[in-house]
Amino acid sequence: MGVEERRQQLIGVALELFSHRSPDHVSIDEIAAAAGISRPLVYHYFPGKQSLYEAALRRAADELAERFVEPREGPLGARLLRVMTRFFDFVDEHGPGFFALMRGGPAVGSSTANAMIDEVRQAAYEQILSHLSIQSPPPRLELVVRSWVSLAESTALLWLDGRRIPRGELELQLVHDFAALAAVSAAYDDEMARILLPVLADEPPGGPFGDLVTRLTGLAATLPAARTGAAAPASPLPAARTA
Amino acid sequence: MGVEERRQQLIGVALELFSHRSPDHVSIDEIAAAAGISRPLVYHYFPGKQSLYEAALRRAADELAERFVEPREGPLGARLLRVMTRFFDFVDEHGPGFFALMRGGPAVGSSTANAMIDEVRQAAYEQILSHLSIQSPPPRLELVVRSWVSLAESTALLWLDGRRIPRGELELQLVHDFAALAAVSAAYDDEMARILLPVLADEPPGGPFGDLVTRLTGLAATLPAARTGAAAPASPLPAARTA
Repeated sequence: MGVEERRQQLIGVALELFSHRSPDHVSIDEIAAAAGISRPLVYHYFPGKQSLYEAALRRAADELAERFVEPREGPLGARLLRVMTRFFDFVDEHGPGFFALMRGGPAVGSSTANAMIDEVRQAAYEQILSHLSIQSPPPRLELVVRSWVSLAESTALLWLDGRRIPRGELELQLVHDFAALAAVSAAYDDEMARILLPVLADEPPGGPFGDLVTRLTGLAATLPAARTGAAAPASPLPAARTA
Repeated sequence: MGVEERRQQLIGVALELFSHRSPDHVSIDEIAAAAGISRPLVYHYFPGKQSLYEAALRRAADELAERFVEPREGPLGARLLRVMTRFFDFVDEHGPGFFALMRGGPAVGSSTANAMIDEVRQAAYEQILSHLSIQSPPPRLELVVRSWVSLAESTALLWLDGRRIPRGELELQLVHDFAALAAVSAAYDDEMARILLPVLADEPPGGPFGDLVTRLTGLAATLPAARTGAAAPASPLPAARTA
């Protein structure tokens, strides 16, 4: 094998091991054994565990950023949902490695690692702006998009911790969360309303954004009936969901 | 000064310096000079910069967790808003120190530091559950509350990076975001609807939750008018916010 080929093989072996156990608990010996080469030979290609780890992280980061790329076709909600599915595919495949990286364990929390995480966040941010056809986002749009990216991260991490909610539900929920955070901002800022309302308005009624609006409207209608206490007004509206 | 008194003084001096510059860029020499003692004497009280840093972090973490404590009186939205104001007070006071800690710089990203961050997150989580009067949260409620806590963190960090949006606006926005994320979950899960609808329904119309519902309902009414393209249906509704 050539040098680059061997390096790529070792990166692949490392990523495979990190997908089952945290990088903190994977030794160079194990990586050597899994690659079928000696420990000194691993050090010939990577000066230390940290450099192999960072090379593996580089490949994983590039792979994740690629999954954010989505054709600009069809409704936005459906596009975002497809990206969320690929994001959870990635999280699922890299489970313990992703978890350890984002939670910053001893072997994984280097400034190089942090810079790569930020690169991936930036890639996600730019993809979303490009799908919204926005070149110069106002600060409030930047905040909504970046904080939603961080919400997607934390939701994925919470999912990995026990997988108590089906991932498909969370993929859809994150699409809804995006619409919800955008709507909150639009409800209090005219510039955000001008940017986001046409986007939401063009979504098909059966798509994730349209369905959310329908459900939330229904939910809002049940609010009077959900009131507790003696002074609650009588309401003609059904309260089926709150029964 | 006694040993404990001197330690507390050094912690206070360190926190003051960290509130202006990242702990990574504050030396033991500077801390010694600001405390008016010699560098060796600092090492007498703290074996190294890391131990002083962790002691400072301990005090800051306790202080932040205390700010989450809010009397169980009055509407929930107003309670949450008061906590958000105290949270942004803290973020404002500790700016660079908070930023460096949460972004995990070289001096700050230890596993001890991460454990303390998690403790504060847990304190925030438990406070919210207690205000919702929930002892055993279902997984979806846990997810909404924990992911909102992480949203509050990332919003504060984005605010610190340039302070381009008034903090008062973000304090209120986070209260609205909580309601929005809760509503999204309630719109798709009956158990969440049963838990959260009575809470939202009991909020006064003029409070942050009530105001959001009014505004979002108004926004939803303008959606048909916001539709682009030739096939857009005529709408009798005003489109003032999108004009």
